[in-house]
Amino acid sequence: MRTIVVFGAGMSASVLIDYLLENAEKEDWKVRVGDHKLENATAKVRGRNRGEAFAFDVKNEFQRLNEISEADLVISMLPAHMHEDVARQCIALHTPMVTASYVSESMQSFDEEAKEAGVIIMNEIGVDPGIDHMSAMRVIDRIHAQGGKMIQFESFTGGLVAPESDDNPWNYKFAWNPRNVVLAGAGGSVKFKQEGRYKYIPYHQLFRRTEVIELPGFGRFEGYANRDSLKYREAYGLKDIPTIYRGTFRRPGFCRAWDVFVKLGATDDSYVIEDSENMTYRQFLNSFLAYNPDDSVELKLMHYLKIDQDSEIIHKLEWLDLFKEIKIGIPRATPAQVLQHILERKWTMTDTDLDMIVMYHLFGYELDGERHALESYMVIKGEDRVRTAMAKTVGLPVGIAAKMILNGKISTPGIHIPINREIYEPVLEELEAYGIEFAEREVSYNGY
Amino acid sequence: MRTIVVFGAGMSASVLIDYLLENAEKEDWKVRVGDHKLENATAKVRGRNRGEAFAFDVKNEFQRLNEISEADLVISMLPAHMHEDVARQCIALHTPMVTASYVSESMQSFDEEAKEAGVIIMNEIGVDPGIDHMSAMRVIDRIHAQGGKMIQFESFTGGLVAPESDDNPWNYKFAWNPRNVVLAGAGGSVKFKQEGRYKYIPYHQLFRRTEVIELPGFGRFEGYANRDSLKYREAYGLKDIPTIYRGTFRRPGFCRAWDVFVKLGATDDSYVIEDSENMTYRQFLNSFLAYNPDDSVELKLMHYLKIDQDSEIIHKLEWLDLFKEIKIGIPRATPAQVLQHILERKWTMTDTDLDMIVMYHLFGYELDGERHALESYMVIKGEDRVRTAMAKTVGLPVGIAAKMILNGKISTPGIHIPINREIYEPVLEELEAYGIEFAEREVSYNGY
Repeated sequence: MRTIVVFGAGMSASVLIDYLLENAEKEDWKVRVGDHKLENATAKVRGRNRGEAFAFDVKNEFQRLNEISEADLVISMLPAHMHEDVARQCIALHTPMVTASYVSESMQSFDEEAKEAGVIIMNEIGVDPGIDHMSAMRVIDRIHAQGGKMIQFESFTGGLVAPESDDNPWNYKFAWNPRNVVLAGAGGSVKFKQEGRYKYIPYHQLFRRTEVIELPGFGRFEGYANRDSLKYREAYGLKDIPTIYRGTFRRPGFCRAWDVFVKLGATDDSYVIEDSENMTYRQFLNSFLAYNPDDSVELKLMHYLKIDQDSEIIHKLEWLDLFKEIKIGIPRATPAQVLQHILERKWTMTDTDLDMIVMYHLFGYELDGERHALESYMVIKGEDRVRTAMAKTVGLPVGIAAKMILNGKISTPGIHIPINREIYEPVLEELEAYGIEFAEREVSYNGY
Repeated sequence: MRTIVVFGAGMSASVLIDYLLENAEKEDWKVRVGDHKLENATAKVRGRNRGEAFAFDVKNEFQRLNEISEADLVISMLPAHMHEDVARQCIALHTPMVTASYVSESMQSFDEEAKEAGVIIMNEIGVDPGIDHMSAMRVIDRIHAQGGKMIQFESFTGGLVAPESDDNPWNYKFAWNPRNVVLAGAGGSVKFKQEGRYKYIPYHQLFRRTEVIELPGFGRFEGYANRDSLKYREAYGLKDIPTIYRGTFRRPGFCRAWDVFVKLGATDDSYVIEDSENMTYRQFLNSFLAYNPDDSVELKLMHYLKIDQDSEIIHKLEWLDLFKEIKIGIPRATPAQVLQHILERKWTMTDTDLDMIVMYHLFGYELDGERHALESYMVIKGEDRVRTAMAKTVGLPVGIAAKMILNGKISTPGIHIPINREIYEPVLEELEAYGIEFAEREVSYNGY
C-alpha cells in the first residue's frame, strides 16, 4: 500500500480528495489529509475507506517531517509560501511532491538538489497555472510538429460566477481568494509583447487597457493583462514570438468600474488607514477625495474621475453600498483590507451559487506561407459549492499527476511545470473523462 | 586642537567645508575631509590652513574606525544609507556626529545606546530636512508661548532654478539629486490631514492634486504633497492638529506635465526595459502606448492621456526631444533610469546657472477666540555653481551644529533632530548672518 499525504484541506482541495479516495482501492493507496482545522480534513474525507484525517500544524516541524517520511507522495495545498519548507524536506527524504502553485525563485533553486536526489517536484499543475500550460502546449506542439511557426499567443483565464447565478451589476462574485482578487495586478508594471514591440502598462492604467473576446454560447468577456506575459516564453518554446499576452477574464464593464478603486488608491495594501474601525464606507471613499465641506462625496468622486452621473459605474458603486454610512468595524486595516471587507458582503457566493472557470487561448501561426489563427477554449461550471469549477479544475490535474508519479509514468526528477508531452497528454486525456475539455475553432488571423 | 572629520565631499559639502575652514583658526580645529575621489576632497580643501584632504574608502572598516577614533566630531555627508555604520561606531567610540539626512528606523533604534554612551547624533540639520524643522518650530513655539492653539500647518520646500537662469518651458533644472527628483513620491500613497479628515493620495494622482502659492516678489509656485505629512506631528507638538500638509514646490505647470511620465509608467524603477540600449526616446514613449502601426506616437499619447494638441504639456515634451529617434544607449535600464538620462540632457545646470531654494510655511492658529494665519518664507539663491543655494542651506546648519556640539552648547545625548529651542535659536541666528532668513506676514485665515 502506498501513502499519499495531503497538506491543506481548504475549499479547493475537495475534488482532489474525492479523486484520491475514489482511486484508492484500485491504486492501493492510503490517503492522509491534514489541515490546521481537523474538521476541514474530516469533512473532506467523510469517513471513507482508506482515508484518514488529521490535525496538521504546519509550524510543527516534527510532525511535518514525520508525515513526509512516511509518505510515498506529498501533495501540498497549503498557502504558496509554505511549499518551500515542504519541498526541501521532500527532497531530503526522497519523497515526490505535487503543488498547484507558481514556482517561486527559491523553489526553482532546489532544481539541482531535486535532480541529484532523484525526486520529482511537480508545480503549477492546477488550473491557472496548470491546465493553461497543458492545453496551450498541446496546441503549440501540434503546430510545431506540422511545421508551423508560432507568431501570436494570447491566453486568458477567469474565475467567474456561472450565468444562472449571475445576478449583480458587476457580473462577478468571488470564485477565488478575495484578497488575491483585490490585489490583482498591484505592485508593478505589466509586461507583454505585440508584433515585436515590448509593451509596459503601469498598474494604475491596467484596467483601462482591456480587450473583449466573445466565446460562442458563453457571451462576451473582458480581459486585462497579467503581470508578466513574457516569463513562459522559454518554457513554451516561443522565445522569439512577436506577440505574447496573458490575461484575466471578467465580464464586460467590470474593469472600468474596478478602475475607480485603483484610481482612488483603494487597493493599496501598504499602509494602515487612521481609525479604520470607526470609519464608514462613505468616509472611506471620502478619504481619497479632496477636502471640501460643501460638496458631496458623490459629486467629488464623479468630478475627480470624470464619471458621468448616469454611468453604469455609479450604479455598480451604489449597489456595493459604498456611499452609505455603514461602519467598517475593522481596526488597523489597509485600504485593500477595507475594500475586501466591503466587497465580501456582496460578492460572496451563496450556498446555491455556481462558479465558472473560463479559459481561452488564441494561437496565430504561419504554415506554408500562410497565416492562420486557432482559438481553443474551455468553460467549466461548478456542480455545487463543494464541487466547484475551481475545486475541479485545480484538484483533478493535481490528483492525476500524483497518480502518474506514483505509477512511474512521470519519472524525470527536478523542479517541474507540466509543459512536456509525457505529462500533459495523459493528464488532459483523463481530464476529458471528467468533462474538462477544450473546444477549438479556426478563425481568421487578425494580428495583434 | 580639536579634529573634525568630514566623510563625503560631494557638491553639497562645499559651503560646509568653507565654513569649517573659515572658523578653524578661531575655534582651534583641524578639518579632515575624506572622499572616495581624493580630487573631490582636495578641491574642497584648496590647500587651506588646518585643512587636510584624504582618500576615503567607505568600505574600508579599518580606515573608517581609525578616522572616527581620532576625531572629536564626525560629519557624514555620505549617501543616507551609509550613515548607520558610521553612527554605530561613533557611539561606540564616544564621538559626536552630525548628518543632514532623515533619521532611518535603524538610526532611531540607536537612541538608547547613544544616551548611555553620552553621545550626540544630530540628524536632519540640512535644509529639508533641517531649516524647515527649525524655522517652523520657532514660530510654533512662539504661538504656543502666546497661548495660541495651532489649527493648521502647511510647509513646502523646493530646490529650483533661479529666475535669471530659468530659460526652459518646464521652469525647472536639477538643483538636487536627479534620481531623487525622478522618483519623488513613488512607491506609496501620500498621507495628510485636512480639517480633521485624513486624506490619502496614490502616487499616480499625486501630480494632479496640487495647490498654488504666491510669494511676494517671487511669483507663483505649485506644491505637491510629500509622502507622509503626519510623521512630525508628535515631534512638533502638533499631535491633534486638524490640518497638516507638507509638500514640494515646482513652478506652475510643471506637475501637470510631469504627470504624463507618472501616468505612462515612465518613472517605474522596478523592472528593466528590454534592449533599452538600442531603443530611441520615441520608442521608449511608444513602449507605454498601445500597439497600432497606423497611428503616430504623438496621437496615441494625446488620446491616451486626453491631452490637447495645443497644450503646454506637448510643448514641454517636445522640448525634451521625447518624440525624436535619439538612441538611449544605456544597457539594462529601468524606465526611471531612461527618463533620468533624457532629462539630464536638458535639465542639468550650466556653469553659469544659479539655483534657488524656496521654503514656505503657513501657520493657522486660534488666539483669544480668533483665528489667525501667518506665512513665513525664505528664498535663497546660489552665488555660483560651487556655492549653490543648496550647498549653503545644507552646509551651514550642519557646520553651525558641529560648532555648537564641540563648544558644549548642544549637550543632550541621543539621536536628535533640531526641534528644540536650545538648538534652533542659535543656529537660525547665525544663519541670518549668512543671509539665510525668513520673512513673515500676517494673512487672513482661510482654513484648509
